[in-house]
Amino acid sequence: ATTAKARLPEFLEMMERELDRVMDFWLKNSHDTINGGFYVCLGRDGKRYDDLKYCWLQGRQVWMYCKLYNNLPKYHTPEILQAAKKGGQFLMNYVKNPTTGKCYFTVTKEGKAVKVQRTIFSECFYMLAMSELARATNDDVYKQEAIKMLDQLQHWVCVDDTALGRPQLLGAPRVNSLARGMIFLNLLDELTAGDPALQEKYASLEKWSIEQSLQHMQREGTVILETVSTEGKELPGSAGRLMNPGHAIETGWFLLQCGTKHELAELKKLAVDNFIARPFQTGWDQEHGGLYSFLDVDGLSPTQLEWNMKLWWPHCEALIATLMAYRETKEERFLDMFEKVFDYTFSRFVDLEHGEWFGYLNQEGKVTQDFKGGPFKGCFHVPRCLLLCTQMLQKILKGE
Amino acid sequence: ATTAKARLPEFLEMMERELDRVMDFWLKNSHDTINGGFYVCLGRDGKRYDDLKYCWLQGRQVWMYCKLYNNLPKYHTPEILQAAKKGGQFLMNYVKNPTTGKCYFTVTKEGKAVKVQRTIFSECFYMLAMSELARATNDDVYKQEAIKMLDQLQHWVCVDDTALGRPQLLGAPRVNSLARGMIFLNLLDELTAGDPALQEKYASLEKWSIEQSLQHMQREGTVILETVSTEGKELPGSAGRLMNPGHAIETGWFLLQCGTKHELAELKKLAVDNFIARPFQTGWDQEHGGLYSFLDVDGLSPTQLEWNMKLWWPHCEALIATLMAYRETKEERFLDMFEKVFDYTFSRFVDLEHGEWFGYLNQEGKVTQDFKGGPFKGCFHVPRCLLLCTQMLQKILKGE
Repeated sequence: ATTAKARLPEFLEMMERELDRVMDFWLKNSHDTINGGFYVCLGRDGKRYDDLKYCWLQGRQVWMYCKLYNNLPKYHTPEILQAAKKGGQFLMNYVKNPTTGKCYFTVTKEGKAVKVQRTIFSECFYMLAMSELARATNDDVYKQEAIKMLDQLQHWVCVDDTALGRPQLLGAPRVNSLARGMIFLNLLDELTAGDPALQEKYASLEKWSIEQSLQHMQREGTVILETVSTEGKELPGSAGRLMNPGHAIETGWFLLQCGTKHELAELKKLAVDNFIARPFQTGWDQEHGGLYSFLDVDGLSPTQLEWNMKLWWPHCEALIATLMAYRETKEERFLDMFEKVFDYTFSRFVDLEHGEWFGYLNQEGKVTQDFKGGPFKGCFHVPRCLLLCTQMLQKILKGE
Repeated sequence: ATTAKARLPEFLEMMERELDRVMDFWLKNSHDTINGGFYVCLGRDGKRYDDLKYCWLQGRQVWMYCKLYNNLPKYHTPEILQAAKKGGQFLMNYVKNPTTGKCYFTVTKEGKAVKVQRTIFSECFYMLAMSELARATNDDVYKQEAIKMLDQLQHWVCVDDTALGRPQLLGAPRVNSLARGMIFLNLLDELTAGDPALQEKYASLEKWSIEQSLQHMQREGTVILETVSTEGKELPGSAGRLMNPGHAIETGWFLLQCGTKHELAELKKLAVDNFIARPFQTGWDQEHGGLYSFLDVDGLSPTQLEWNMKLWWPHCEALIATLMAYRETKEERFLDMFEKVFDYTFSRFVDLEHGEWFGYLNQEGKVTQDFKGGPFKGCFHVPRCLLLCTQMLQKILKGE
């Protein structure tokens, strides 16, 4: 049998081709040339089935366009930059509430507010967009906007979250959710790259983000739980037993990146063993293949109805994480994991007919929803995965 | 082949037996003898997997206990009454916020607030509990509490909903959701039964509830849409195209009951044809059997991840609705539909080993979650269905 190592050139070639096919889909179907910003509710063939603009995805698409513009000559085009800038303008004009600094979750195509969440994620993706737009344009306005938003996020999360509008209820003490520490690791990595002064400014926030993330290692480090107490203890009930393998694995590569940057051997080891390898083993469906969306650590039924569905994004994160773990450790077990996800993903999620990937499969791997973009799926996880993996594969093949 | 009509005694016998098995499950496993109220997160065998008390289900279980106490001699016991009263006390002490009148969505086992929704449903089930508790106890305190809550609900829905705490956003005009008109039909039927003065008081609210419900008939009456504009027009996008067959069918029997009570022949006809027969045909999975959870009226993929799952409650509602439609019309097509749901339900949802019904099946009919009680499943849809169907079957068999 061909080893995974021997297939590296094949992986690279297929992922390069797939990146172009995926970006073609968004470039062709998602631009709102009238209002700016991006349509995201796109059917299998790219046809729009809803005009609503989901704001996580507005920020993410701007970030993605800028990332490609800044990293691949092929995407360093005026068209890409122009679309990103119009998206950034839409974010600043309509997604952020200038009075409160809160960002909406959904707006109409013209930018009228439809829905606001009492969390921080629209704001996080707003920040990522501004941060990468600053690099693409060399315009300090965007960078200052990103810094301002990060400072506000830090205030909400570490000092006072009253402005988020969540009621303080006696039976609901604060908790530590994996998404929070994890997203801060990503925000900091993105914003401070190549800027030692900003790295210095946010050093203690980065330390806090690592600590918050590591608190989710429970039961002697054998599992990553989605929600723990603020003291890093296991919580009672379904919420306390919940595992989200895709989230754990995504956190894994954020931690690994951080450990690599700062040369923290112990952190790197925790990242690859506890956040990537173990959740991958636990989260993989031995019978039908693919990563579960949710699991209960005691083997009970998760209350999330979609627990056994196979979603595109955990597979994207697993491709990045296992390849990065291989790059850092040179252990072939990570390349075997990568191969497993690659084969599952390229045979099930990829749509050879219309481009982009399906997002939702049932446990057996059959497509349950055929749209390419929707309230939570946009131009982000798939092209980010393909960009990062092709970059890593090129370096691995060059022996760097 | 045996006709559905010939199987009526079999249906009755199996549903009577099932009602007792289901109630045994709740009587044995759900009572919190220390704090009052009911544990609802119960695994396949009745073992508790979470202490949280979901408040829709607190109100519903009190209502169910009282309904059985008031209707079946077998359940007219001090134990049932005592548990219902303790549940009622828990609702009044801990679920309702005395300052605002709002009810919580979740509380701890001791009654500390965990979560509050910006909707009206915890309050609706609180009202149902008080209304039936008044009948069981002959205590006017409960009746006044029910009336007070209904008046408050009417104020929120028809006059001013500021107190619900939903932000008013420019891109989100008010809409007419099926759940709202539908639940008011049920609340009014329950509260005013046998009380002509109350029927008089709420006559215009009942008329409003009928009108609101009928607005959901769209496309020349061929479909029932879950959400329409306040002018009764179809809305754009996924939300505007959404159908929930179980909801339509449940609304169908509420409307049919209302039409029967007031001898409104035209309303009865709309109820059985447009709200029961058509959504049943559209909602039934021709390949695997069972009712879909959601469908898009244009045949696109619904964005709800669980759209193709088969949930227990639409099947409970379909059993009630088709049998009631048969009782009122004597058309055998409704008995055929009843038989179809009966056979699907009794072969898939019923758990002969541990009692009560599974709540969640995948499209092919395999159990995906094995718990009997959870955040949205309690002592309500199954026993309500079994009580109403056995009562109807007895009358049909007696030729009444």
